[in-house]
Amino acid sequence: MAQRLIFVTNDDGVGARGLARLVEVLREFGRVVVVAPEHPQSGMSHAITMATPLYLKELRREDGLEIYSCSGKPVDCVKMALDHLLRDTLPDLICSGINHGSNAAINVLYSGTMGAAIEGSFYGVPSIGFSLDDHSLDADFDAAAGIAREVVSVILDTRPPVPLCLNVNVPVGRPEDIKGVKVCRQCRGYWRENFEGRKDPYGRDYFWLTGAFRNAEPDATDTDDWALAHGYAAIVPVEMDLTNHHQVVSLGEILNR
Amino acid sequence: MAQRLIFVTNDDGVGARGLARLVEVLREFGRVVVVAPEHPQSGMSHAITMATPLYLKELRREDGLEIYSCSGKPVDCVKMALDHLLRDTLPDLICSGINHGSNAAINVLYSGTMGAAIEGSFYGVPSIGFSLDDHSLDADFDAAAGIAREVVSVILDTRPPVPLCLNVNVPVGRPEDIKGVKVCRQCRGYWRENFEGRKDPYGRDYFWLTGAFRNAEPDATDTDDWALAHGYAAIVPVEMDLTNHHQVVSLGEILNR
Repeated sequence: MAQRLIFVTNDDGVGARGLARLVEVLREFGRVVVVAPEHPQSGMSHAITMATPLYLKELRREDGLEIYSCSGKPVDCVKMALDHLLRDTLPDLICSGINHGSNAAINVLYSGTMGAAIEGSFYGVPSIGFSLDDHSLDADFDAAAGIAREVVSVILDTRPPVPLCLNVNVPVGRPEDIKGVKVCRQCRGYWRENFEGRKDPYGRDYFWLTGAFRNAEPDATDTDDWALAHGYAAIVPVEMDLTNHHQVVSLGEILNR
Repeated sequence: MAQRLIFVTNDDGVGARGLARLVEVLREFGRVVVVAPEHPQSGMSHAITMATPLYLKELRREDGLEIYSCSGKPVDCVKMALDHLLRDTLPDLICSGINHGSNAAINVLYSGTMGAAIEGSFYGVPSIGFSLDDHSLDADFDAAAGIAREVVSVILDTRPPVPLCLNVNVPVGRPEDIKGVKVCRQCRGYWRENFEGRKDPYGRDYFWLTGAFRNAEPDATDTDDWALAHGYAAIVPVEMDLTNHHQVVSLGEILNR
């Protein structure tokens, strides 16, 4: 059997600890190629770079591992890898992460980690975004690394039908604290922001975006937010058809002509 | 009846022609407040600004119209307007656009115009993104302005249930060329990129991202891509639950523990 090829990216940047940890796990499964953003790109969602050109830089090459940085955003990294660097050699798997911070619930939409994973799935390759519910610099990635190993192993062995894009979130804690793995649905909710105002040295007002997530269904027990809050790793399969099919019918009645 | 309040933003920037045209239409319906990006932010998707602070600048204030620029991305503009500038005064409607270029099919995901409209819907306010299938600088916005007037009028009069987010795309042509309005579903497909390589003055390789959309269901007649290609204005109601509910069941069987 030919050696497996796994493509990896993230949004915290090529130097992030979470990426290094994910690469370490994935090398157990095959040859790993990394193209990750030169600089941190958190909150970059599915953004792409159109106004400026992109640079690609080889940082490291050894047996079974190649690491490149890209001057763009997470989705640029995926496109650069799949359409340029690897060209017609499709990887067996695409992974993004391990992100510092949860991408559960509506965070899937803001997340560069998940933007990259979603883009990866457009190539017909199983794509998985991994995130750890811990923003701290000294976050412990052991539990997330263990979950990544488990999920990757199942997906590579069972090869479920594509398109396949998974949003995997792991709670804080040691590996033995994880209660289990739950495939669940995205929790409904949204962020409300508090714009913290300051004055710059030139007398101009400026604002920091700081907000809090509001869970719109705190009592539901089948959501990623619930699973994460109760010690489970949460896996949400992500859909790329954003159509609200019910509304196609109801709105058709008032808008079609 | 109190005067209606309509919030407007876009991704082409506060100086864009499409924005000016949309504002002109919306003033027929009520007081208009604009917070739009200082600089063009095409392809910014649902990205938010976390690493740098945001500036807000009043550009114009007259009877029934206020225009501000924001140093951030389209979604930042919505948050800045709804959570800071307007605070607890919810607008009756949120509009984004008119974008220079189509946001049909999977473009909904890359689009800053639609990122802003989606964010708007999180406030429980009907939100509509308008795009014209024409990237040219001298694009004719008459047809798109007419469709915007028609859609806004129906939505304000009938007040369909929220959350409501519409992706409205208008074909190129004069108003009388538009065959009708079709509420439809998002066409499946994806982009494949061609990285056009060049050398910078310092001898380094760089790449421009240039791609082409591949329609994965060219024969389907109920998609936005079909409607647009056949002379209709296409309206796709956008859903914010990205869960693939079928896969929750099928993947639960192999991953739950």
